[in-house]
Amino acid sequence: MDERYMEKAIELAWLGRGYTYTNPLVGAVIVKENSLLATGYHPKYGEKHAEKMAIEKCESPEDICDATLYVTLEPCNHTGKQPPCTQMIIDSGISKVVIAQLDPNPVVAGKGKAYLEAQGIQVVSGILQEEAEDLNKHYNYFHRRQHPYIVLKQAVSLDGKLSVNPFQRTYLTGEETYKKVHEERQCYQAILTGSGTVLADNPTLLPETITDFPPVRIILDRSGQTLDFEKYHIFGEGAPVWVFTKTDSIANIPAHVHLIPNEHWTIPKVVDYLQQAGIQSVYVEGGSKIHDAFLAEGMFEEVISYISPKLIGGNGVPAFSSDRDVSATTPLVLQCVEAVGEDVRIVNKRGKKDVYRFDSGNRDCQTNPKSKSPY
Amino acid sequence: MDERYMEKAIELAWLGRGYTYTNPLVGAVIVKENSLLATGYHPKYGEKHAEKMAIEKCESPEDICDATLYVTLEPCNHTGKQPPCTQMIIDSGISKVVIAQLDPNPVVAGKGKAYLEAQGIQVVSGILQEEAEDLNKHYNYFHRRQHPYIVLKQAVSLDGKLSVNPFQRTYLTGEETYKKVHEERQCYQAILTGSGTVLADNPTLLPETITDFPPVRIILDRSGQTLDFEKYHIFGEGAPVWVFTKTDSIANIPAHVHLIPNEHWTIPKVVDYLQQAGIQSVYVEGGSKIHDAFLAEGMFEEVISYISPKLIGGNGVPAFSSDRDVSATTPLVLQCVEAVGEDVRIVNKRGKKDVYRFDSGNRDCQTNPKSKSPY
Repeated sequence: MDERYMEKAIELAWLGRGYTYTNPLVGAVIVKENSLLATGYHPKYGEKHAEKMAIEKCESPEDICDATLYVTLEPCNHTGKQPPCTQMIIDSGISKVVIAQLDPNPVVAGKGKAYLEAQGIQVVSGILQEEAEDLNKHYNYFHRRQHPYIVLKQAVSLDGKLSVNPFQRTYLTGEETYKKVHEERQCYQAILTGSGTVLADNPTLLPETITDFPPVRIILDRSGQTLDFEKYHIFGEGAPVWVFTKTDSIANIPAHVHLIPNEHWTIPKVVDYLQQAGIQSVYVEGGSKIHDAFLAEGMFEEVISYISPKLIGGNGVPAFSSDRDVSATTPLVLQCVEAVGEDVRIVNKRGKKDVYRFDSGNRDCQTNPKSKSPY
Repeated sequence: MDERYMEKAIELAWLGRGYTYTNPLVGAVIVKENSLLATGYHPKYGEKHAEKMAIEKCESPEDICDATLYVTLEPCNHTGKQPPCTQMIIDSGISKVVIAQLDPNPVVAGKGKAYLEAQGIQVVSGILQEEAEDLNKHYNYFHRRQHPYIVLKQAVSLDGKLSVNPFQRTYLTGEETYKKVHEERQCYQAILTGSGTVLADNPTLLPETITDFPPVRIILDRSGQTLDFEKYHIFGEGAPVWVFTKTDSIANIPAHVHLIPNEHWTIPKVVDYLQQAGIQSVYVEGGSKIHDAFLAEGMFEEVISYISPKLIGGNGVPAFSSDRDVSATTPLVLQCVEAVGEDVRIVNKRGKKDVYRFDSGNRDCQTNPKSKSPY
């Protein structure tokens, strides 16, 4: 029974996706005598928390007395943009709180649960924890590891190449992948690329929908070659752009462009800066060298590959390449594979297999029991 | 009704898989008054044809009179290892023949059907033709195009690399892929590689089961570097090996090794030689340069990619690479994608999508209707 109500709370939590910015997705339901009294979720950064929405939605507040609250994440015990949820729960008369996942954010981290218990409320935690953790993969990782969750995204030919030549864009993947990548960008707080990609492809790196909290677009550009704000599309939009460069003496910098000067930027220094800036997740859309630099440092958690049904061959530009001598492979774990239009999308991760959830493509291999052919 | 009996005949045809060598897979059933009288298939090169097996299996030969024969391929009208099937059909008293696919082999090619019709037998063709063609993809292609069906097989890292360095094997794919590749080899009449792969990997290139008709293993080795019959495993087995080389002055060549000397072998010349030799299908397991040479010549029909959950990066060896300047991509069509253990197997083809049949892996992306996450 607990699981059924928690499933409902998880389902509600997803409704906030793309709008809660640095806040986690949270859902809540209030139940009394096997009857669902009210539901809530955190709809947007700065707005009501899930618990508050649910409590306020109860038509007869006196009904809440001795009710049970199911919530996907530990209620907060501090005052942020909103007053603490724990006090509101206590004041409402709720007598039991069922939590899926304790909050790894150090400002909460067990304090919410402890406070509720100290006030005589029965607290159960860990119900559907795995499913609830899936709501906030980046948030959980960031707070547990003090490190952004870094994803390397590559869009390559079947032979693992990025383009026919290094100075010009080669269109490889199809429309469905284009759409999927734009949707994916929306799930990260930063989209990172290198100067080579800006010069060759001139991308915007924007997500599909620009919410109030679009991802920061980041350019690693030591020498400042990309700093032509008229020419490069990445600078043309209202969403913020951060440029890690050694240059700080550029005139007429648009307000949404932020130069972060340092003579000796390295990948670890950049990542450290992002962590300090509270960036929980980074989607790296680099060229060969940027990806290879993240690989060389071991600074990534996931690789998303879009593989196009094209061959390049010859002296085409390989993904993840540099002059660096390699002596070993870096092992990953296959998470998920699917067809996306004419392309193939593969997700690999460091560590163990997650429970991933995707739409299956229409190119799954079919078993025909009559056929003994390997084709 | 015709389709149901033809389905049965196709099912029977598959039983010969791996044993019919240059002969096609064929299945047959004999039906009278909606009752199945007998079934047959071509079990092995040199043995009975499907029609003959079915006719001989009828317990009461007089029952065959006015029966209908369903056969997946046009009956032969010539004497090969077996007498012509058309005459045996006529003699049996069968009055109607339903054929799935006409035989593209010029020694048959419509003559079987014409002869049956001339003898007053009713002939219907084209029933489940597509499914029946799938039985003999390589055979059909070879006889229609006068060209072997060439498949380029690559086993690569997630970043499209073959190995950490060019002179030593890097173990990339897992056990399930190893098994699948060994099964796959069995479906081709030749397995082709380059001297570099023999020197670095020292493979046998043998299939899983060595039948009476194992594939010819082919080495493209202009300078004859691999011709150490003790050292390289490819020479250690009883199955034939052909070496395309400029050298013909080697002593003590084992009986199963065949040197094919020419000062100026090129890919088109090699393929032409194979076509003349009646090789219907070639599975190319080359290194970067061999694959790139087949790509440059446009001489392949299919690419099978095994993608391992590993990254190499840096100066690792990319697949399909050479000094050749490329100016465009070569478009293919995605046929099938599946997880094979921890690896991903992708089949791409030139031209249109086929009906492919595979076992689905256990890493298909799952749709969870409750989840709005793109993960």
